[in-house]
Amino acid sequence: MPPSPGARVSRLTLRVRFGETDAFGIVFYPNFFQYFDLATEELWRHSPYDFAAGITGGGAGFPIMESGAKFFAPLHPGDEFTIVTSVADVRTRALRVEHEVWRGETLLASGFEVRAHARKVPGQEKLVMEPIPDDLRAWLLPATANAAP
Amino acid sequence: MPPSPGARVSRLTLRVRFGETDAFGIVFYPNFFQYFDLATEELWRHSPYDFAAGITGGGAGFPIMESGAKFFAPLHPGDEFTIVTSVADVRTRALRVEHEVWRGETLLASGFEVRAHARKVPGQEKLVMEPIPDDLRAWLLPATANAAP
Amino acid sequence: MPPSPGARVSRLTLRVRFGETDAFGIVFYPNFFQYFDLATEELWRHSPYDFAAGITGGGAGFPIMESGAKFFAPLHPGDEFTIVTSVADVRTRALRVEHEVWRGETLLASGFEVRAHARKVPGQEKLVMEPIPDDLRAWLLPATANAAP
Amino acid sequence: MPPSPGARVSRLTLRVRFGETDAFGIVFYPNFFQYFDLATEELWRHSPYDFAAGITGGGAGFPIMESGAKFFAPLHPGDEFTIVTSVADVRTRALRVEHEVWRGETLLASGFEVRAHARKVPGQEKLVMEPIPDDLRAWLLPATANAAP
Repeated sequence: MPPSPGARVSRLTLRVRFGETDAFGIVFYPNFFQYFDLATEELWRHSPYDFAAGITGGGAGFPIMESGAKFFAPLHPGDEFTIVTSVADVRTRALRVEHEVWRGETLLASGFEVRAHARKVPGQEKLVMEPIPDDLRAWLLPATANAAP
Repeated sequence: MPPSPGARVSRLTLRVRFGETDAFGIVFYPNFFQYFDLATEELWRHSPYDFAAGITGGGAGFPIMESGAKFFAPLHPGDEFTIVTSVADVRTRALRVEHEVWRGETLLASGFEVRAHARKVPGQEKLVMEPIPDDLRAWLLPATANAAP
Repeated sequence: MPPSPGARVSRLTLRVRFGETDAFGIVFYPNFFQYFDLATEELWRHSPYDFAAGITGGGAGFPIMESGAKFFAPLHPGDEFTIVTSVADVRTRALRVEHEVWRGETLLASGFEVRAHARKVPGQEKLVMEPIPDDLRAWLLPATANAAP
Repeated sequence: MPPSPGARVSRLTLRVRFGETDAFGIVFYPNFFQYFDLATEELWRHSPYDFAAGITGGGAGFPIMESGAKFFAPLHPGDEFTIVTSVADVRTRALRVEHEVWRGETLLASGFEVRAHARKVPGQEKLVMEPIPDDLRAWLLPATANAAP
């Protein structure tokens, strides 16, 4: 699914850490999901959503509901790569972000995360889903937000 | 996709390691893919496939092509859980395994891995896919292997 | 420092996980400290100390103050190894545990952890150290505890 | 041990990744050693030593012999911190680097790594130690290198 026209896109450039590789000499595949998580954290850092408040528990967070990836080529020790993250869909209580991992002109992997917007209620194990605030929605989908009705 | 009737199923029971949790107090989601990888490694350990030979490079390995998961409930520090892994599909040069993560009677996550059967050829960056050997195929799909023609 | 005579000793046998190795084909060294942490967690699991209560924050925990290790030989993918953990010293508000990592008859690494006994006080960033309870002390140093005065 | 006068010093500034924290809400302590490893890798990146060649196996590497750390204060999710790495001692076949982890003006941890200079010889399990090359030695200890005899 291509990002909606005018959806928020962010980029994060990293270098492979040696501890992220495995005995095959390439990045251990679960670390691609760590990269996705990191790219989404980076997205929040530039958004109106206060990621830190969500962590400390009074606020709402974005727990993962679903994630997946296709792998086309590996990352090696010391490789520099860029994760391109685009907001693909914003529902009332959940959103979908899509990630691409590029090394230069080579697409190495593509994936996605679906995350709920939910709050921890004291004394209750299950998180309670709640609507994504309007200001965050407008930031996530700037073209839509500015569009004429 | 339910496992083929008679397909190989393996189980791996683990306890959450403290380092696998994050500041939300639950297992950091990319670690579920580490669990999937571990469960597949466990499957190989009981199979005719020589995982160690694949690593040292002369042999063929099973690099990841695609993976995904849905998350229903979190794992907490010290939780004991079981990964149920079933062989869902065996193609000529690739296979699909499916994983379920259970804590007692609660299904916490379900996911899958598609892996190629491929060999590293010296002096060549790209792995070369090759057919899954017959003995391994028979082990992966025992009912099929024993079925009348 | 050899463990005090009669000090508590515990053993934890694990197999190297593929994701713990790195592109050198051996276990990435920081993971030995993850093993130490895990071995100490295992020690608590058999002790009167309620590790889970410490985590949820009402209870006291054992934050790390110092740790170190010497490395004699590497661990490879799939290796089985045993961490032998002994209580080396129990002070009023801290303790020292020592770890040895063995593969068969080969000592691969030895190390230690010094941990404080401390409590998180609401609204205060710094943890407050407090005495190790008597029942836990007696469990950690059984010979001493039973010794005539 | 303070760095030798004129020894090489490098700095690496990072932000805590969410997956590096644990259920205590702080960075899981073994990750400090991952940071040390990363800081040493960064040191190599600016040096005449070809880290990549060491990995691919034809070259010599710097396997860990000993490491240790003292922990004064924790790192939290999203914290920015700087690792200051100084070359503390260069022997014929080994070196010692020292690391300090700072968040602003607060020293959070200090530690060290002793690493051998060694080569993997085909068909031999044990690495063979060999002298650190002169050009690398001169780079590691620039003041000494430039000193009058």
